Amino acid sequence: MSLDIPDIYLKRVIIIGGGFAGIELAKHLKDSFQVVMIDRNNYHTFQPLLYQVATAGIEPDSIVFPLRKVFAGYEHFHFRMAEAEELFPEKNILKTNIGEIKYDHLIIASGSDTSYFGMEELRKKSMPMKSVREALDLRSCILENFEMAVTVHDEKEREALMTYVICGGGPTGVELAGALAELKRHVLPKDYPELDLKKMKIHLIDSGDRLLAAMGEHSSSKAKMYLEKMGVNVWLNARVTGYDGTIVKTMNGTEVNTKTLIWAAGVMGNFIKGIPGTAKVGGARIKVDEFNRIEGTENLYAVGDVAFLVNDAYPKGHPQVAQVAIQQGINLGNNLGSGNQLTRWKKFSYHDKGSMATIGRNKAVVETKYLKTQGVFAWLIWMFIHLLFLVGFRNRIVVFFNWLISYFNYDRGMRLIIRPFKRKE
Amino acid sequence: MSLDIPDIYLKRVIIIGGGFAGIELAKHLKDSFQVVMIDRNNYHTFQPLLYQVATAGIEPDSIVFPLRKVFAGYEHFHFRMAEAEELFPEKNILKTNIGEIKYDHLIIASGSDTSYFGMEELRKKSMPMKSVREALDLRSCILENFEMAVTVHDEKEREALMTYVICGGGPTGVELAGALAELKRHVLPKDYPELDLKKMKIHLIDSGDRLLAAMGEHSSSKAKMYLEKMGVNVWLNARVTGYDGTIVKTMNGTEVNTKTLIWAAGVMGNFIKGIPGTAKVGGARIKVDEFNRIEGTENLYAVGDVAFLVNDAYPKGHPQVAQVAIQQGINLGNNLGSGNQLTRWKKFSYHDKGSMATIGRNKAVVETKYLKTQGVFAWLIWMFIHLLFLVGFRNRIVVFFNWLISYFNYDRGMRLIIRPFKRKE
Repeated sequence: MSLDIPDIYLKRVIIIGGGFAGIELAKHLKDSFQVVMIDRNNYHTFQPLLYQVATAGIEPDSIVFPLRKVFAGYEHFHFRMAEAEELFPEKNILKTNIGEIKYDHLIIASGSDTSYFGMEELRKKSMPMKSVREALDLRSCILENFEMAVTVHDEKEREALMTYVICGGGPTGVELAGALAELKRHVLPKDYPELDLKKMKIHLIDSGDRLLAAMGEHSSSKAKMYLEKMGVNVWLNARVTGYDGTIVKTMNGTEVNTKTLIWAAGVMGNFIKGIPGTAKVGGARIKVDEFNRIEGTENLYAVGDVAFLVNDAYPKGHPQVAQVAIQQGINLGNNLGSGNQLTRWKKFSYHDKGSMATIGRNKAVVETKYLKTQGVFAWLIWMFIHLLFLVGFRNRIVVFFNWLISYFNYDRGMRLIIRPFKRKE
Repeated sequence: MSLDIPDIYLKRVIIIGGGFAGIELAKHLKDSFQVVMIDRNNYHTFQPLLYQVATAGIEPDSIVFPLRKVFAGYEHFHFRMAEAEELFPEKNILKTNIGEIKYDHLIIASGSDTSYFGMEELRKKSMPMKSVREALDLRSCILENFEMAVTVHDEKEREALMTYVICGGGPTGVELAGALAELKRHVLPKDYPELDLKKMKIHLIDSGDRLLAAMGEHSSSKAKMYLEKMGVNVWLNARVTGYDGTIVKTMNGTEVNTKTLIWAAGVMGNFIKGIPGTAKVGGARIKVDEFNRIEGTENLYAVGDVAFLVNDAYPKGHPQVAQVAIQQGINLGNNLGSGNQLTRWKKFSYHDKGSMATIGRNKAVVETKYLKTQGVFAWLIWMFIHLLFLVGFRNRIVVFFNWLISYFNYDRGMRLIIRPFKRKE
């Protein structure tokens, strides 16, 4: 079976993944190639706001955007909702779950997924948050916990339902912990007058000696201070070693009784079968040269989270963040678009625009080249930047409006269990 | 196991269902009773806009509203997300999936669900649209059909994927058919340039001799004219007799090749086990007297879609619409609130405020006591009334904003397959 895509006078580029990198690539390649994009979803996900979906702050539909709509009007563009299954580099063929397709160039922009570092029990029992579906499962899970907490007769079980452990002190973990603390303070007491919300506990665990390790020490300590003021228990230099669905065990022997362990401690590349094994490095990432070409191949590339690019500035590889993906997409798009004369190609060079994380209302930390700030001003910058990078006018307005309302009424409207979450056995 | 709800000095009313009737009841009873509300969902659903969720017009989160938020601040109110399983009238006990509970009064406001009139094959193979989950399944199904239509090799299969049969010419069927016609005309051609959208077919089938049978003949013929102008095939006096997942069969021998049959042809009450069998009438409704008391009982009541109330004005029972539910909720709430002196109770008397249906942009039919109108003005009235009855300020603004944007850009933004739909086997 083959994917019915017409052979035309243009060479064909297949892009696997419609994330930040994939979108930039398609935009830059549309005039010089026939572009085929493969994604398992029919939409682009704005991952930085997933934590707000999980904590009932915004509706999922506002942080995703239909991929076909992004590329509406492109002449030689073809989208296929499909799963990339295997690559046959010697034949220039990609096998997907709906058929095979030939390519001239193939770019892997498949992003990353949660890594449990091989700990099978954790994979089965904890909750990841890397997709809209997972964020919605987490939202259902949190709300169901409270519905159950109202009805259970056993005090210990109630405590477990009201205790949240987040593993991983990067931006996702910090933002989730902050959002949960705000739910605890402003929203849940109104919804559950029958519960003593003081008993709700939020633990944030990280194996390093500070939160937000990618940022400066001042931001890290500020974030920790904010979180602790909001009632979050921050555990540094701690490592989760096991979780059976009830007890979280840590390396130093501490145990926490909880029904919900949220795993935000690691990612791994969405590696694709058939890529030369020599190109696979730690974390299931793909080793590329400074032009994002997969080592040892002629017409295969990897960009974004799944790519592992080492240069003088980043001897340990680039961070797995949206900005790297966007810039690699643009750079590779320009290079491929300029033709086969490799002498004209530009090496990838990352312009770090800074990083940021929000902790709660009026509380964020922002670091850019020219500016390091915390508090209200940082929080405004955070919101502005996130609205700016959200795809779609409607989405921006709706998200902005949700934030505005939440700011004034201290509420989060999306407390809905649309699809009940079923715990994994 | 019992539901842990404190016994206090107030008598206890249990309300099963947080729909239009249930909400009014809780509001009217909160000062004179301890109110316990049971619903299988933690939210109220605004059913009249489900068809817009199914056709990617608005996000599901904007037409539902958390029930706990509706009643925030009520002193003697208890919500339980639970399924009512059985009633034991002789013991005044309700059994739910999370435990048993005693009551002084119990009101069944459990609404209605899709009825297939006993046709098992139709139940298995067709798509209902009575809940948010079902509307989201339909949205996924429609979008997946088109994703598949792009990839299939067989022309006949492609046609079946692009053909929609809607059974039932009431407001739901008419509004769905209109919304699909607009998708066909304005949205899908941009998304699927590879498909010949002229081949998309929409059939609306009704067994009666006109659409919108509850409205006047002029509205019926106007709705039919609008739909036909928009390319919908309207089949009157036709009855679907079978559907095997591919071929819809009708009584007069016509067959339609389709992958999607949407069933909007009938509803039945959500009857609850344990109600005296003598009170059960056709369509699984519960026979009540003019005070909404279940016949042959002392402290059991039924309101809204599930209730069957006959009086001089409505010798065949009342229509199963939101207005009846709201008014019965208010009337019973006032009666129960006034105490046990039945001489003070008022018989239910329905004030028909009219009915309406929208067909497409600038096209609706409206009938009220003082006004019958069609076209743009009717369409504006329809929108205004629907925004007015939507629960929650945020929801109103977001829905209004979505309509505004769609009106100007002829687009529907929510073309997202968040959870793929799995066809029933």
